[in-house]
Amino acid sequence: MQITAGEWCKLLDGNLEGDPAVLITHPAKIEEAAKGAISFIANAKYEPFAYTTGASAIILAKEMELKSKVQPVLIRVDQPYLSFTKVLEYFNNNHQNLIGTEAPSFIHESASIGSDVYLGAFSYIGKNVKLGNKVKIFPNVYVGEGVTIEDNSVVYAGTKIYPHCKIGKHCIIHAGVVIGADGFGFAPKPDGSYYKVPQLGNVVIEDQVEIGANSCIDRATLGSTVIRQGAKIDNLVQLAHNVEIGAHTVVAAQSGISGSTKIGKYCQIGGQVGFVGHIEIADGSKINAQSGVSKSIHEKNKAWNGAPAFEYMASLRAQSVFRNLPELEKRVQELERNAG
Amino acid sequence: MQITAGEWCKLLDGNLEGDPAVLITHPAKIEEAAKGAISFIANAKYEPFAYTTGASAIILAKEMELKSKVQPVLIRVDQPYLSFTKVLEYFNNNHQNLIGTEAPSFIHESASIGSDVYLGAFSYIGKNVKLGNKVKIFPNVYVGEGVTIEDNSVVYAGTKIYPHCKIGKHCIIHAGVVIGADGFGFAPKPDGSYYKVPQLGNVVIEDQVEIGANSCIDRATLGSTVIRQGAKIDNLVQLAHNVEIGAHTVVAAQSGISGSTKIGKYCQIGGQVGFVGHIEIADGSKINAQSGVSKSIHEKNKAWNGAPAFEYMASLRAQSVFRNLPELEKRVQELERNAG
Amino acid sequence: MQITAGEWCKLLDGNLEGDPAVLITHPAKIEEAAKGAISFIANAKYEPFAYTTGASAIILAKEMELKSKVQPVLIRVDQPYLSFTKVLEYFNNNHQNLIGTEAPSFIHESASIGSDVYLGAFSYIGKNVKLGNKVKIFPNVYVGEGVTIEDNSVVYAGTKIYPHCKIGKHCIIHAGVVIGADGFGFAPKPDGSYYKVPQLGNVVIEDQVEIGANSCIDRATLGSTVIRQGAKIDNLVQLAHNVEIGAHTVVAAQSGISGSTKIGKYCQIGGQVGFVGHIEIADGSKINAQSGVSKSIHEKNKAWNGAPAFEYMASLRAQSVFRNLPELEKRVQELERNAG
Repeated sequence: MQITAGEWCKLLDGNLEGDPAVLITHPAKIEEAAKGAISFIANAKYEPFAYTTGASAIILAKEMELKSKVQPVLIRVDQPYLSFTKVLEYFNNNHQNLIGTEAPSFIHESASIGSDVYLGAFSYIGKNVKLGNKVKIFPNVYVGEGVTIEDNSVVYAGTKIYPHCKIGKHCIIHAGVVIGADGFGFAPKPDGSYYKVPQLGNVVIEDQVEIGANSCIDRATLGSTVIRQGAKIDNLVQLAHNVEIGAHTVVAAQSGISGSTKIGKYCQIGGQVGFVGHIEIADGSKINAQSGVSKSIHEKNKAWNGAPAFEYMASLRAQSVFRNLPELEKRVQELERNAG
Repeated sequence: MQITAGEWCKLLDGNLEGDPAVLITHPAKIEEAAKGAISFIANAKYEPFAYTTGASAIILAKEMELKSKVQPVLIRVDQPYLSFTKVLEYFNNNHQNLIGTEAPSFIHESASIGSDVYLGAFSYIGKNVKLGNKVKIFPNVYVGEGVTIEDNSVVYAGTKIYPHCKIGKHCIIHAGVVIGADGFGFAPKPDGSYYKVPQLGNVVIEDQVEIGANSCIDRATLGSTVIRQGAKIDNLVQLAHNVEIGAHTVVAAQSGISGSTKIGKYCQIGGQVGFVGHIEIADGSKINAQSGVSKSIHEKNKAWNGAPAFEYMASLRAQSVFRNLPELEKRVQELERNAG
Repeated sequence: MQITAGEWCKLLDGNLEGDPAVLITHPAKIEEAAKGAISFIANAKYEPFAYTTGASAIILAKEMELKSKVQPVLIRVDQPYLSFTKVLEYFNNNHQNLIGTEAPSFIHESASIGSDVYLGAFSYIGKNVKLGNKVKIFPNVYVGEGVTIEDNSVVYAGTKIYPHCKIGKHCIIHAGVVIGADGFGFAPKPDGSYYKVPQLGNVVIEDQVEIGANSCIDRATLGSTVIRQGAKIDNLVQLAHNVEIGAHTVVAAQSGISGSTKIGKYCQIGGQVGFVGHIEIADGSKINAQSGVSKSIHEKNKAWNGAPAFEYMASLRAQSVFRNLPELEKRVQELERNAG
């Protein structure tokens, strides 16, 4: 896999400064790059490395000014990070050609398997399961009765999908994920013990969704827990029964969303955030890490912080006064002393 | 599975208003229900749907007054949610008739397997394991040496049970759970590195306990980590070594309980709560989501909130002032200016 | 396994008080110990049990004074907890003699397997994998292409290791861990949807590291996510792409570390702590449970608390005033009334 800086420039629709014949053999971080590497600068903080890096080529913004001449070939583009992503994709050959069925695996006779599918050893394909074309099921995956997984989706090792859940096209489900376990529903009895509320619904995951390792998405009590198209869920996230995640919303690691809460489209949820149940979050909301959201958010495209969460900037100001609370208390004491 | 509204009314010991001959084919949420559906109202918030729903029957409280005549048959009961739970149970046929052993599975010759057991493919039943009658072990489950699982318990796919742990009757262990991994115990050496403290105990789970997906329950250093009868643990919960969870206590998702802490009976622990180690929590305590409990709680049946947690109502009041801290600081400044 | 109190005293290099011929059959907690048990006191809080315990021997500090004569033999040592750890190790025979390959397992023909290895049933050993001597791979483990695991490391049931990750010697990886899943990297497109950033790096785990159940360690975008020698990671921890954990650092359960953050050596991270990405934490830092660390920490060996975290003692003082905020507000009102 060797192409020249000039060829990369053409592929990325950029402007070249330097020798187009320089060979590119691999991508690397600019601070660690050596000869043959192609690297990038998307953040001015990394500009100093431009003068010291061993990289053979750097992708950077068209408008970025450099203070002096540099050694590497420069490829100037509109969006350096997006362009570098394309470089990474070119060099990524992880699993791309896995195909066929490894033995032993368990495939129920009623299952329908598309063409060019990979089924790893010890994978379990239950009754009436439907797998689309080019689906990849890694080892030790459990696919329960009646599950459908559409074309080009990948399910990594050891993931468990309970019966009757649906996964769309081009999804990536990482290892250890649990999809469709019972929602946490119990009706209290008069004696304080609990009666289990059966969970008859399922989970529906639309196209181009990615789910991080060991995350859990519970099945609905009735109807479906839904993850809309293009949403990205990080590791160890908890989505309770009847939750809905809007299209192209991103949820960072270890966040938890309680039952029946609906998150809008294009939201950004930080890590370790919690949401109470039965609320709705407007499209484009940004929730800072570790926040606790206890009420519906109706205004779109606003940022929130804190536990309980409120408007982002106001929350930062309150946190800032919080740090000086002992001092504030002394000032009040002083006023009381003077007043007394 | 078709029974009439009249038959449901009899089964639920309710009072009927409307045509007893109406056919009921499935349960549904009142806001989505269509012909043939039985639905319920447990919360006055949902009353408006009574006038618009397509459901054929609604379960509601005996005392609930409706403003006008409605289309569906009404089944009036004492506890609508509990009654609807029975309806859900009737329509729930998930896995109920799984039985027999799928190949390949691994069953040690010394294991003792009860009658009417289900063993999924790729399940591992170790040395001297004892499985009671009607136990269901789903695919890819690991049951280590000397584990016992009593009658009617279900262990979903990919769960791992380390040696010598004990699980009672009628338990439900969801997918990906880890029971009996080593507690996190390390003795510091003089050079700052750590010496591993062997964890020789086990985990004991009593009857009718439910454990959510991907939760972790560590084995005790000595003795047992114990989950008492009827306790319900949600997904991604961490129970450290020598923890004890009291009977009929509920722990919501992503909460963590540090080593040797004992939680009483009939407690309700919200999501993402943390407890320090070596404390005791009184029976009937309610801990709000995201709280951090740093001290023992001796009074029973009280509610707590915050990190560190204190009395619930007082904590809400403090949080309310917190939001206005910048304003409070300005008032102090104003007082100082006037006093100066 | 019976040895006498006298023999234990010699093994632990201690001083004996009492009958050296007393037989020791097992270790036990002092509050539960019966005849034959060896127990310990490392904390003065447990001294009262010395007078009431049924234990046959107690390990305690050389300098600890007891108020009266006790029944058990006393073994006085410099570090009671460390000595008791050695006792536990003596009585620990978990899995120590597992060896051989259980059928069925999947071993790629190109894999290299050391001597005295245990491979549990349904374990998957991919292409070009290298396992050192005495490695133990429990059932249902997935070891992806090109992974290396060095001598004496143990991987418990159901763990998933993605391709090209490296695990050193004497490591313990608990059940359900996911090593090497894709980092959470997405480049936004102009329409608000996301472009997946391929994750080409790997995870490198050095020697004597322990990883708790169901924790997730993502592979680097480029280069490696690294866990240095002797670090101990608890259950359900999230380590994002390109994170580095320093040698002999301890991370408690459910903590999460965002991308590219570097934690120093000999740090102690409490449970449910969160770190933002791209920061550095100085050696010897102690972070209290549930803290949120939003900035780099440059000073070594200091303690921090809160969200956002600041200096430990100052943070406790601010939390203490917080509890009385409604009272403080009233005092300000009172001052205003008097001034008005």
